[in-house]
Amino acid sequence: MCQLLGMNCNVPTDIVFSFTGFATRGGRTDEHKDGWGIAFFEGAGVRLFVDHESAVASPVAELIKSYPIKSKNVIAHIRKATQGQVALENCHPFIRELWGRYWVFAHNGDLKGFSPALDGAFRPVGTTDSEHAFCYLLQQLRRRFGDTPPTLDALRQEIDQLTREIASFGVFNMMLSDGTALFAHCSTRLHYIVRQHPFTQAKLSDEDLSVDFSEVTTPNDRVAVIVTEPLTTNETWHSFESGELKLFVEGAPVASTSTT
Amino acid sequence: MCQLLGMNCNVPTDIVFSFTGFATRGGRTDEHKDGWGIAFFEGAGVRLFVDHESAVASPVAELIKSYPIKSKNVIAHIRKATQGQVALENCHPFIRELWGRYWVFAHNGDLKGFSPALDGAFRPVGTTDSEHAFCYLLQQLRRRFGDTPPTLDALRQEIDQLTREIASFGVFNMMLSDGTALFAHCSTRLHYIVRQHPFTQAKLSDEDLSVDFSEVTTPNDRVAVIVTEPLTTNETWHSFESGELKLFVEGAPVASTSTT
Repeated sequence: MCQLLGMNCNVPTDIVFSFTGFATRGGRTDEHKDGWGIAFFEGAGVRLFVDHESAVASPVAELIKSYPIKSKNVIAHIRKATQGQVALENCHPFIRELWGRYWVFAHNGDLKGFSPALDGAFRPVGTTDSEHAFCYLLQQLRRRFGDTPPTLDALRQEIDQLTREIASFGVFNMMLSDGTALFAHCSTRLHYIVRQHPFTQAKLSDEDLSVDFSEVTTPNDRVAVIVTEPLTTNETWHSFESGELKLFVEGAPVASTSTT
Repeated sequence: MCQLLGMNCNVPTDIVFSFTGFATRGGRTDEHKDGWGIAFFEGAGVRLFVDHESAVASPVAELIKSYPIKSKNVIAHIRKATQGQVALENCHPFIRELWGRYWVFAHNGDLKGFSPALDGAFRPVGTTDSEHAFCYLLQQLRRRFGDTPPTLDALRQEIDQLTREIASFGVFNMMLSDGTALFAHCSTRLHYIVRQHPFTQAKLSDEDLSVDFSEVTTPNDRVAVIVTEPLTTNETWHSFESGELKLFVEGAPVASTSTT
């Protein structure tokens, strides 16, 4: 299995603190050493860093920990290979373009016998079940909505249906973002926290590192962090329910307006 | 205008020496300070680094200069904005997936009144003429060959036609790679060199730096470097002809078998 880390904020925020704890699980405090990756949206653009070295040994991960890239939507992944060999093309997050926007996707889990037909619009480059699922997701969104992006609510309902369908083949914890919103689906394990005023101190569980967020934020800032296992020891993290899809916009989960 | 750097090799090779000279033109020895980017193929995967800071000021460029990533196909770009604001989504190289492979593209030049209809399969995320041209190129390749990738020779003929068509709208120096081959088209300025046994010393023109390639290579290595302006002072670089498309495979230009 792998681990996922996502961040969705209302102002561009750096993820150095959370990534530092998370990356430690990529070979030191946990066994996810078969590559890692992180994608930062900056406006419509994306910086994508992937590496088939373990996150604890990677010079690129060192850069991320020391260079505060500010972003409103981030998705990161550390990999323990289950399907697909250890190779760069199998490292998450994956990226594709749909509707003139980049879409970024990462998956934790294992799908069994999942090989729906792909019509050629989006095809996997590597050999993971994860990239196949991502290509299928985008293909179905494009089939459903054509060349015009739908409203966020319609998109959420469709992604909710698609994640249920894919999750019927196995474990499908996933994160998906187009740079304006972040979707997170939980099959088995996913947690989140919303940090907002009044900000307090947070202490990492995987490293001897604390940060006082009140010193680095303004009262209007709001940051949602979504992760497989809670990153800090002194904050209250919320568990996702199994089968739940959450939509994060501007640093907070958005209540569903649909009845599904 | 911008500058381009490409490398195509028969064994994975690092580009630290050439990139060091090239990056110096991104704000120090030349004026290309509106962002930069570099893409490395590793097998079927790609590492893509883009930054809207100048290459001389970028911490990511420092990493590239100190971390020898080995690749058989590399495309790099330093940008002086002509069309499209200075923003991450306008930094080259651009990346898309076609036929289950990543395609990487960078452009130096300026196209006037170039806005062919795009059918939705590939759409620009940013606002450059360059990304529009890349999307058009891939769209036309997919229309021409459908879901099955053609032979390299058929691909070359089609890309030759497409680059002539696009170049009729202005200056279109470009590099394109799918990780197996590198296509380079010259409108105005492009140079290349093939380094092979017996390797000698090379001295950068933009930095006080030399390397003796005979110390870091084996007799079977072959490396083609393609660049807007020659990078070294003591080697013989070949000029492209205007309107010429060259195909590089395994570190050398491949003679055209067509009569066009």
